[in-house]
Amino acid sequence: MERYDIAIIGTGPAGLEAALTANARNKSILLIGSRDLSVKVSKAHGILNYLGLPKVSGEAMAKVFKEQIADAGIVITEGKVMYAYPMGDYFALQADYTDEIPEARTVILATGLAQTKGLPGEDRFLGSGVSYCATCDARFYSGKKAIVVGYSPKEEEEADFLSEIAAEVLYFPQYNENVHTCDKVKVIKERPAEIIGSMKAEALRTESGTYEADGIFILRESIAPDKMVPGLALRDGHVEVNLDMETNIPGCFAAGDITGTPYQYIKAAGQGNVAALSAVSYIAKHSK
Amino acid sequence: MERYDIAIIGTGPAGLEAALTANARNKSILLIGSRDLSVKVSKAHGILNYLGLPKVSGEAMAKVFKEQIADAGIVITEGKVMYAYPMGDYFALQADYTDEIPEARTVILATGLAQTKGLPGEDRFLGSGVSYCATCDARFYSGKKAIVVGYSPKEEEEADFLSEIAAEVLYFPQYNENVHTCDKVKVIKERPAEIIGSMKAEALRTESGTYEADGIFILRESIAPDKMVPGLALRDGHVEVNLDMETNIPGCFAAGDITGTPYQYIKAAGQGNVAALSAVSYIAKHSK
Repeated sequence: MERYDIAIIGTGPAGLEAALTANARNKSILLIGSRDLSVKVSKAHGILNYLGLPKVSGEAMAKVFKEQIADAGIVITEGKVMYAYPMGDYFALQADYTDEIPEARTVILATGLAQTKGLPGEDRFLGSGVSYCATCDARFYSGKKAIVVGYSPKEEEEADFLSEIAAEVLYFPQYNENVHTCDKVKVIKERPAEIIGSMKAEALRTESGTYEADGIFILRESIAPDKMVPGLALRDGHVEVNLDMETNIPGCFAAGDITGTPYQYIKAAGQGNVAALSAVSYIAKHSK
Repeated sequence: MERYDIAIIGTGPAGLEAALTANARNKSILLIGSRDLSVKVSKAHGILNYLGLPKVSGEAMAKVFKEQIADAGIVITEGKVMYAYPMGDYFALQADYTDEIPEARTVILATGLAQTKGLPGEDRFLGSGVSYCATCDARFYSGKKAIVVGYSPKEEEEADFLSEIAAEVLYFPQYNENVHTCDKVKVIKERPAEIIGSMKAEALRTESGTYEADGIFILRESIAPDKMVPGLALRDGHVEVNLDMETNIPGCFAAGDITGTPYQYIKAAGQGNVAALSAVSYIAKHSK
């Protein structure tokens, strides 16, 4: 069986940029993910700060990315990787699209934030009143009412920012630390149970009540990806990397949201570029 | 005087993306650099791996970037920053386009690949006969003799300006393009080797001779970052940063080629994004 130079897991901006760069460097790649690209990308309302793509919708961005990848002759293997076992000088992959065990000399993890257990209604209303990014979508809620469900104190800044634009912001902290939001943000210490609505998200139901809003922001930390690569070091729930996007596992690199905040498209792409070039260097070093 | 939230120094992909992101986060920014953007970007032959801009020429890329920045209402202040002094809770800037001292709560260094190794004697005599800014310091050389070492054709203007004030100007062009200075400027095509003097700079020694002068102007595309920000830590000739693009100076961030290899557009943009969001966080933290 062919052993690929680089297996790239994930087809968000990080994985796609890694693929473009590795391809430009004549490496054989196995790019595994969704041919529809990242759901998060396609469903984003509008991106104001991706240099090169002015005021682009998520859908338009996904279209540009898809065409660019296809034009470069890069094929996306539709599938999901369960495990990438470090075997010394290569990785053995177990994936849902094949019974075989694909092999690659290096692996780039670019699976983004895995939303394994969302709130009921969250998937359904994502892009229709539910958003994962205040920086991106706050402007749609000028003068309106927004709910922010924050899974870490970091998200307080997002709530504060939103309160500069929205008429009213309710903040539901999902952690034990003290909350330090600005005065305009109303803090409600309740656990969300469900997002409800008909055509779009209309309210957040908690264990104690129901809160109506024009928009609901669900701001989460990531889940642990160390199940995929045994022994992978995490830090604060993200894959630990250095500036070269190296993880603690030789030959294993990571890029994009999986490495931590900020969760931004252009940052993910930039890290994908670095990860690919680090994988190229790694291969060169280990081929001598 | 207005104190800006973020001063962004440099108008390559890192600086532009930082500006877009800071602007999207409602921060007041002072973006200083060339309105023609990075010369390196415009001159690039073709870029194969910038996700979002398929097979783009450097010229076309620069055009897209320019329009996007203008559409976002972001103004580029044409100029060069000599110093960004850390003043505790803000930075005081000295720049060649104004006699005032602009202030900013945070600074993002995005000036691109910097020459961190100056000429022998340059460090020693900086401020004592050696200057990085003709606009700032020309008035000290009225009726005197000045040397200008210019690393790009842009600096010819500075030499011409200086010749209006100084009695004599010797110009040492360090590039291949034709030189178009005014008649009063004497052009000498030699490579500088050392700045010599005792209490102050007294002469420039080249490979072929020694030229005495009252002042020596070293005009490069960018000032070495550790000269611009006193106390800034470098590593291997680049600005030392962490994954959040923080430098060792609180409130000072860096992004792009200035932070090290790989020298790639999309990586620079990604880091610009991170630097801007880190500056936003820093401001939030220090405003409470």
